[in-house]
Amino acid sequence: MSDHPAVVLALPPDLAEDLLPAELRARLDRAADWDPAVNLQAGPAPAALARAEVLLTGWGCPVLDAEFLARAPRLRAVVHAAGSVKAHVTDAVYAAGIVVSSAAEANARPVAEYTVAALVFAAKRAFGAARALRTGHDGHQHSPGAATGLTGCVVGVVGASRIGRLVIAMLADYDVEVLVADPYADPAELGGATLVDLDTLCRRADVVTVHAPALPETRHLLDTRRLGLLRDGAILINTARGTLVDTAALTRECAAGRLDAVLDVTDPEPLPLDHPLLTLPNVLVTPHIAGVRGRELRLLGGYAVAEIERYAAGLPLRGAIRHADLARMA
Amino acid sequence: MSDHPAVVLALPPDLAEDLLPAELRARLDRAADWDPAVNLQAGPAPAALARAEVLLTGWGCPVLDAEFLARAPRLRAVVHAAGSVKAHVTDAVYAAGIVVSSAAEANARPVAEYTVAALVFAAKRAFGAARALRTGHDGHQHSPGAATGLTGCVVGVVGASRIGRLVIAMLADYDVEVLVADPYADPAELGGATLVDLDTLCRRADVVTVHAPALPETRHLLDTRRLGLLRDGAILINTARGTLVDTAALTRECAAGRLDAVLDVTDPEPLPLDHPLLTLPNVLVTPHIAGVRGRELRLLGGYAVAEIERYAAGLPLRGAIRHADLARMA
Repeated sequence: MSDHPAVVLALPPDLAEDLLPAELRARLDRAADWDPAVNLQAGPAPAALARAEVLLTGWGCPVLDAEFLARAPRLRAVVHAAGSVKAHVTDAVYAAGIVVSSAAEANARPVAEYTVAALVFAAKRAFGAARALRTGHDGHQHSPGAATGLTGCVVGVVGASRIGRLVIAMLADYDVEVLVADPYADPAELGGATLVDLDTLCRRADVVTVHAPALPETRHLLDTRRLGLLRDGAILINTARGTLVDTAALTRECAAGRLDAVLDVTDPEPLPLDHPLLTLPNVLVTPHIAGVRGRELRLLGGYAVAEIERYAAGLPLRGAIRHADLARMA
Repeated sequence: MSDHPAVVLALPPDLAEDLLPAELRARLDRAADWDPAVNLQAGPAPAALARAEVLLTGWGCPVLDAEFLARAPRLRAVVHAAGSVKAHVTDAVYAAGIVVSSAAEANARPVAEYTVAALVFAAKRAFGAARALRTGHDGHQHSPGAATGLTGCVVGVVGASRIGRLVIAMLADYDVEVLVADPYADPAELGGATLVDLDTLCRRADVVTVHAPALPETRHLLDTRRLGLLRDGAILINTARGTLVDTAALTRECAAGRLDAVLDVTDPEPLPLDHPLLTLPNVLVTPHIAGVRGRELRLLGGYAVAEIERYAAGLPLRGAIRHADLARMA
């Protein structure tokens, strides 16, 4: 590493300004050797890539496979100004000894805030009530479950991930009982929440919120059987990945009026326009917006720039992802 | 007051079970002389009223005017298992030296939670994005204002009421700047929020949330002129009372796409079915559900029962409302 490492951007062009506003570009000027006009997502830059020491990546980044790495022989670090690195970081990156860092930490807070907001509104059956007002039905008589409010609810957190733990921490201010299911969780990191197995969580929770990684073994983690364990009127919130839930099974439960849902992610995503989940009054679907948005993008850019500053100073990266951990991360 | 004061109910019959579940009835049994079958909202009970020392009231309670009080000569306290007492407590109540208590404190927390949830969702333009998904529009391109998320927003709290102060306290955990406008506010009670005049608040806030009392002088507090001060894309949240906002002016601003709104209260309430606020994609209207709901009703009942226990023990009431304060309360 050098005092002023050669940095090349691979950021989505339409978001580059939001990810790197002026004050962050000024910090990069001081810490790195870079050219704001060079962006691999806007066009190839073989000369810049040949001498790049750090790649600053974002959503839509090209896959960093052996062929790509052959064109970037001096690459030492991939700093991702977004959450998951799975779409572009391959085994070849780790095999080449390249450090990988993610800004998932900066993305976690908005997702946790969205989740808690969804809990409050869904427990009040607010979305169905709002739709019922528009159609002239009694807004208080809209939903399969009782409009109990969140007070006294049992909230089941599936996955004590970074976001899951943040949700647990935020819920400490609410009058709820929190259960957590996670095969890898450290009970000491769960605050006042109680660790249980997933089936127990499904049986006991009034609201289930999903914060597990999307892996082959977590596909349809909430399947027909587990959704069937939920009590009548229970609520499912998914801000993680659509494949964690069996969409067909959830659709049946919601169409039958047995469950409500708030889904920021779906499988497939987006859902086809005629999908029942988009029209059911007891389901709210939002288009994958729980994470950072708009000017919040600077949080991701700021996290990434701070990583580059640490790299230039010879410090370990705060968002470094070890190869061994990648497999069970989101 | 006596060790076991004679208590008569005047509770909405359909909510009486939720307001006073078994454990609260058991506490009333121990503290008071009462008959669960006697409820002035279910039918007259002249004999019980004649000897009543405490009236336990709820929404829809009869107006306690001089004529009513003449039939309750021993009445010493009105304990209200709801928020505002303005609909039923008259000057005659105070003139007779009767103590008035409200459970507004127990209702404040759910309203503040709804408000913060509305802030999070509205700053993400989530409601418009959800509607756009259903109609096939790009969910990310739905709303007049930028979908910035709450991070870095300026939140304007109109009214440092009990609920307003609770919202301010909850927002301490969020990355926002909080402005407060309230002619009676004590700056020492506002935490990290900044006291400003209402016009300044309107000019500077990204989101304005209303927590002022509905009084003659606060009618249309947010009128055409003040709504016009809000910046393009600003969001108005009203969980207080519909008359605080000029509905026609707000409708114009929202229909023009200049402002978004989340309205749990409206003027009139409910809105006519063909009202534009009910169909605009950048407005969410819910049917006055921000306060306690369902099993949360026990919070109001529990607060009221604790007041009766204090009364029986000769202690001052925690939710007592002085006559002088009533005029500027919600």
